[in-house]
Amino acid sequence: MSDFKNLGTQELKETKSQLLERYRNFQSRKITLDMTRGKPCPAQLDLAMGMLDGTDGIQYLAQDGTDCRNYGGLDGIPEAKALFADYMGVDVDEVIIGASSSLNMMHDTFMRAMVKGVTEKTTPWMKQSNIKFLCPSPGYDRHFFICEYLGIEMIKVDVRDDGPDMDHIEDLVAKDEGIKGIWCVPKYSNPTGIVYSDEVVDRLANMQVKAPDFRIFWDNAYAVHYLEDAPAELKNILSACKQAGNADRVLMWGSTSKISHAGSGIAMMAGSKANMDHAKKQMAFQTIGPDKLNQLRHVKFFKTMAGIEDHMQKHAAILKPKFDAVQTALENELAGKNIAEWSQPRGGYFVSLNTMEGCAGSVVDLAAGAGVKLTPAGSTFPYKKDPLDRNIRIAPSFPPLEDIHQAMELVGICIQMVSIEKLLSS
Amino acid sequence: MSDFKNLGTQELKETKSQLLERYRNFQSRKITLDMTRGKPCPAQLDLAMGMLDGTDGIQYLAQDGTDCRNYGGLDGIPEAKALFADYMGVDVDEVIIGASSSLNMMHDTFMRAMVKGVTEKTTPWMKQSNIKFLCPSPGYDRHFFICEYLGIEMIKVDVRDDGPDMDHIEDLVAKDEGIKGIWCVPKYSNPTGIVYSDEVVDRLANMQVKAPDFRIFWDNAYAVHYLEDAPAELKNILSACKQAGNADRVLMWGSTSKISHAGSGIAMMAGSKANMDHAKKQMAFQTIGPDKLNQLRHVKFFKTMAGIEDHMQKHAAILKPKFDAVQTALENELAGKNIAEWSQPRGGYFVSLNTMEGCAGSVVDLAAGAGVKLTPAGSTFPYKKDPLDRNIRIAPSFPPLEDIHQAMELVGICIQMVSIEKLLSS
Repeated sequence: MSDFKNLGTQELKETKSQLLERYRNFQSRKITLDMTRGKPCPAQLDLAMGMLDGTDGIQYLAQDGTDCRNYGGLDGIPEAKALFADYMGVDVDEVIIGASSSLNMMHDTFMRAMVKGVTEKTTPWMKQSNIKFLCPSPGYDRHFFICEYLGIEMIKVDVRDDGPDMDHIEDLVAKDEGIKGIWCVPKYSNPTGIVYSDEVVDRLANMQVKAPDFRIFWDNAYAVHYLEDAPAELKNILSACKQAGNADRVLMWGSTSKISHAGSGIAMMAGSKANMDHAKKQMAFQTIGPDKLNQLRHVKFFKTMAGIEDHMQKHAAILKPKFDAVQTALENELAGKNIAEWSQPRGGYFVSLNTMEGCAGSVVDLAAGAGVKLTPAGSTFPYKKDPLDRNIRIAPSFPPLEDIHQAMELVGICIQMVSIEKLLSS
Repeated sequence: MSDFKNLGTQELKETKSQLLERYRNFQSRKITLDMTRGKPCPAQLDLAMGMLDGTDGIQYLAQDGTDCRNYGGLDGIPEAKALFADYMGVDVDEVIIGASSSLNMMHDTFMRAMVKGVTEKTTPWMKQSNIKFLCPSPGYDRHFFICEYLGIEMIKVDVRDDGPDMDHIEDLVAKDEGIKGIWCVPKYSNPTGIVYSDEVVDRLANMQVKAPDFRIFWDNAYAVHYLEDAPAELKNILSACKQAGNADRVLMWGSTSKISHAGSGIAMMAGSKANMDHAKKQMAFQTIGPDKLNQLRHVKFFKTMAGIEDHMQKHAAILKPKFDAVQTALENELAGKNIAEWSQPRGGYFVSLNTMEGCAGSVVDLAAGAGVKLTPAGSTFPYKKDPLDRNIRIAPSFPPLEDIHQAMELVGICIQMVSIEKLLSS
């Protein structure tokens, strides 16, 4: 295919008219496809049905004799703590098992920081002024929504192939006491799919930080969510922070929402013992404890970290063809045309696509006009504003394979149409 | 038995020495009994095991086709909202189904009020000064802990047979804008067992309140937890508030923790549509939604409000003999002696006992010395301080019947010993 930027006006117009015909053909088929959210598909959810059946589903006694049907267990039953400490790469006293949502645990950590402060010795964020957060972008929209909701100023930081722009970050945090933290999705990042390099992890752990109550919000949502045979390596940031003498700098989260059942999984928080003790002390005012029956179900079903990894191979077998279909469709439509670039993720739930500047919003609108719903342009940036209007997040996990073929072909058509429009008008 | 206050020194001393012998006999038996918390006993928890078995436990499709194993459903699946709207006595758009803990929902409501305010038009409580809460006492310790944790000043209000002291309350709320709410456990109250009268409900709904962001925190934890054949009547406070033109004044909570499984039940919040819409808007930043599989299990198992009521009869059949045992033991040990009075609850989870002034702490300590653990004296009051040091909360649900006989006999002995000590020293 030829580079669109080398085509003359006439060629562009002809190509556009061919594309318009294909687009109208799509419209006439009256399809309705939703590619907006990183939801598991039913076949993935079926994989964990064994968790609910008669064998594991009616178990209620934990190893230590705890009746999981009764009150108690603020930070989890011992076998769940053991399994998910392993999952998070921390010691058992460095993990808290929560309810089903890690987002909920992150939100609540913000709320406690706002009202009570990050430690007993620091001032509540509500009593400080000009609170800010670093937001590597494109990133996870719900992270940014929490900051916006709480009136925390978001500072955009670029994302590179090996993680966020560390030069920029080091410069900012060293001098601004108002910067209280950074959002990180370190592995198969949402939406870029990148994995933080060892160097980035080390620099985050070691950097000079002005605010005494600065925290890295480390949302390791896709720790074992690989599309290949083996997971990418991610350096353990808690170990790195300890080594740097900054053990309390990082708070980590994970969940089984995309391992067992979304919304009915197990969420967990991890960090230094001091951080976990502080969180537990505060959580004791909030709850007597989360659903322990669900914890037990998870442990009975997965048993070990190896059990989780085996299970994730089954997820990968379902997801890999869907991610491949996205790549194939984008290659077919866009290769060599110099109007878009996109990620080839080795894990996670998204493909991140960049159009020419100023085109993403129009592409999303155009696709919607033919029945394919994409995540609104801008969603992956603070305040829902992509300054270059070029990033589109594609979520191929939920729709059936055939739908993805169709949807991505249409997306390819729309990108070409909008790009030609832009080239013609410039 | 004779009134201890009419006994002479010699008689008191003789009685004391007999009691001491019985106390030492208890000590020699080296028993360990825990009467501290209102936890269901295993036989009660067994009642809902059908919820986890192969029939109901593997269901995952809601009536409207929602796959309950996937994300979504911030405020609950339709059939759960319908059932628990009925349970709470409200319309379907006046209820939110939460995760497993109503305490968690109350705590989070406080946090949102602190950070964002009770409505979009009122000032966050953190930005106001001298925030106060009314605390009918004796009351539920975990309610008071939330206020203490957040630095909200607690004002003690007396509890009478028909509810809190309304004259006192009306006087306070009419003139103090700092008073932002009141804690209420309106039915089979913790620990007194009283039920709010219609008049009290109406006065709460109609009273003049200075603070525009005042809320009644209505924790109807024991709505169907009766020990008799039929529940006591409680006037619907949301209806009363609407009638009074104060629809947004009350926020209500309930849970199935003591209906199905404690810690693995369903919690719910109810109130005016405006209040629920506001809460949902804020909760959308916290979570994508609670565990819908657990909601579905509950609906499949209980089906209707009548199903819940039938189920509670089975709970009552287990609990009634335990509550009777408390009454019998206290009668046997204390009747006619004029040193204690205690509640005869018709529902709920507690018996509330008042000793002579200044004796409760010593009784709890003395009982502990012979192996019976009671809730620490003062726990039922703000700041854990019972100004008269006389209230003891007895929780008979969890221990086996035989243990309750023993424990309550010992409690009776301890009360007599401490009372005599006091009479002798005065």
